Amino acid sequence: MTFSALSHLECSRTGAALDADVVQGVSAAGAPLLARYDLERVAATVKPAEVAHRPPDLWRYHEVLPVRDRAHVVTLGEGMTPLLPLPRHGARIGLPRLLMKDEGLLPTGAFKARGAAVGVSRAVELGVAGIAMPTNGNAGAAWAAYAARAGIGALVAMPADAPEITRRECVIAGAELHVVDGLIGDAGALVRAEVARRPGWQDTATLREPYRIEGKKTMGYEIAEQLGWRLPDVIVYPTGGGVGIIAIHKALLELRELGWVSGDPPRLVAVQAEGCRPIVDAFLAGADESAAPADPRTVAFGITVPKPLGDFLVLDAVRSTGGTAIAVTDEDLLAAQAALARDEGTWICPEGAACVAAVAQLRGAGELAESDEVVVLNTGSGLVYPHTVGLP
Amino acid sequence: MTFSALSHLECSRTGAALDADVVQGVSAAGAPLLARYDLERVAATVKPAEVAHRPPDLWRYHEVLPVRDRAHVVTLGEGMTPLLPLPRHGARIGLPRLLMKDEGLLPTGAFKARGAAVGVSRAVELGVAGIAMPTNGNAGAAWAAYAARAGIGALVAMPADAPEITRRECVIAGAELHVVDGLIGDAGALVRAEVARRPGWQDTATLREPYRIEGKKTMGYEIAEQLGWRLPDVIVYPTGGGVGIIAIHKALLELRELGWVSGDPPRLVAVQAEGCRPIVDAFLAGADESAAPADPRTVAFGITVPKPLGDFLVLDAVRSTGGTAIAVTDEDLLAAQAALARDEGTWICPEGAACVAAVAQLRGAGELAESDEVVVLNTGSGLVYPHTVGLP
Repeated sequence: MTFSALSHLECSRTGAALDADVVQGVSAAGAPLLARYDLERVAATVKPAEVAHRPPDLWRYHEVLPVRDRAHVVTLGEGMTPLLPLPRHGARIGLPRLLMKDEGLLPTGAFKARGAAVGVSRAVELGVAGIAMPTNGNAGAAWAAYAARAGIGALVAMPADAPEITRRECVIAGAELHVVDGLIGDAGALVRAEVARRPGWQDTATLREPYRIEGKKTMGYEIAEQLGWRLPDVIVYPTGGGVGIIAIHKALLELRELGWVSGDPPRLVAVQAEGCRPIVDAFLAGADESAAPADPRTVAFGITVPKPLGDFLVLDAVRSTGGTAIAVTDEDLLAAQAALARDEGTWICPEGAACVAAVAQLRGAGELAESDEVVVLNTGSGLVYPHTVGLP
Repeated sequence: MTFSALSHLECSRTGAALDADVVQGVSAAGAPLLARYDLERVAATVKPAEVAHRPPDLWRYHEVLPVRDRAHVVTLGEGMTPLLPLPRHGARIGLPRLLMKDEGLLPTGAFKARGAAVGVSRAVELGVAGIAMPTNGNAGAAWAAYAARAGIGALVAMPADAPEITRRECVIAGAELHVVDGLIGDAGALVRAEVARRPGWQDTATLREPYRIEGKKTMGYEIAEQLGWRLPDVIVYPTGGGVGIIAIHKALLELRELGWVSGDPPRLVAVQAEGCRPIVDAFLAGADESAAPADPRTVAFGITVPKPLGDFLVLDAVRSTGGTAIAVTDEDLLAAQAALARDEGTWICPEGAACVAAVAQLRGAGELAESDEVVVLNTGSGLVYPHTVGLP
């Protein structure tokens, strides 16, 4: 078996195949590209029990990751984050089988490290000279760090309202930082203009390059492995650009095709903040795509994405698994963050806290049963958001 | 084999044995207590290859940890942090075999989570109602989190100069927080008074309870395991209270007694800041104990400990392994922090950066050879110290 079983890229709208061994952005139809693998060959040559003996980072799933040569792996030790039972908080909200995957324990303090590790590794493998991206903070911090580790250039553009500490993460890693008076879309325009004038540079905006999603899908692989190659009933994910939930959905489908898990996939729940809920509105309206809200605003800044490129993929992930989409208020998510810290000792980010608030509300509404095994994703460390905790 | 092979506690000065199954503080001689195990039985029943198949957290070494019943383990998923090669920075400073153990990826953002996990677990097992401690910040944050997770009380006293974010970590975890206008010794006096009036509470100040050191020794076990049950030539550790270096030394001796590694132990290097260098001065003077400096002060606040209780154990660890002690300036450690981030993408804490600066200086002075395999401990995430990175 070679290090990667990557076969080609596929347009997520039309199914058209593209060459995976040159730098690609979106498809001719303007849609995100999905990496495809020879899963039959992987299934025939690798068993889950073998994976269990590999080092505890996301590269343990290297056959279903896109990096062809192990020598091109750029790593800061990311992956195999804890899957923590939350017994006290679960009992309080009527979900005794509540679990949290804690992505705050990744390099740079957020789940974004997964996408950056795999995205930068593959960019290096394909000869990219520098990466440029708009960000709500955490992704820029992660890609800046991995670009430094790889020794390639990095340009990051973020809204002035993004968490200040993520700016410092970019600066210390030596990235070129642009602070934009606007939202992530405005930052995206700046990035596209800069990439156009820099030969060999790549626009690594959300879903505009194919490999970030591959890094993030390892969250799904890890959940399955940590449960003993079994899946929970429900997975709950905070949704901004949507890569995380799309990626976990992709992982679930691959895991089934590999034969590493069986049965129905978990119901996927997309969580947004009331101040920016395009996916929730589209879900409730039965629409296939989302419409940007007028004045998006929430303390969970990481999910302030008015019009995600992959909205149709998020909606498909939720609908095809029998899941749902729900928005919570800033007040409720901050209360959930505080309650969880007191109950379980873990200081999570506002985006993760939105999921904790959401499961309590879904349980209250009877959409989750007491018997459900529910995995909530905490996408980052509370350390990145010090202002969410007041001092006496 | 039972979960733990703990046999008794031993006075680190006199060797006197004490009962491990009641709450203990320091020995009659006023010295730290060391946990002892039936290592012969462990060696006869557990092999390193078996450990490799256990989940990736510090509890994989449970036979040599003090918790007797697995049900008493209080965990946030701590341990098995990455051991990262630093090829670009290593080449720059003439140490091509430089590695860093990155403890910033632990819960609460610092290596203190190891001591808190094991210390709180054992406290719960022995029926302690609440823990109280003075701290330079990170330890208090960690013990507050694990106490919340365990459902016991926590009182934390820290100097006003401690990193502000660690205060927020204590607050959100529901700890009783006291901010003291002074140094860690002043905070210690407050804690002793409070513990005296609270039945069932324990003073968990540095080396005043025996189990924090057991959690931290897993750094040594992990380094050995991650190198394939082999030890490096040199291990470099930032030294304040000294528990980390004492604990790694203890691990090295246990590993040899277990037969899990062989050969000479690594040379242990204690790193301090010029603004607070009692261990360095004692080492250079050939003294067995340290003397408190008049006005201790460094940006690496975590190692501002004027008179550590375990100073004689630190000096023994350094001398008996043929190591050394060295102090670096704040200017040099901040420069090392920035250089490492640009070279390798990792944002480390000032205390870890002191070690990075120290190895460059030791290499320059010829005390480290180009061929030496050197492991530097980064004890925490840069996220806890945002002010160490300026914004443009």
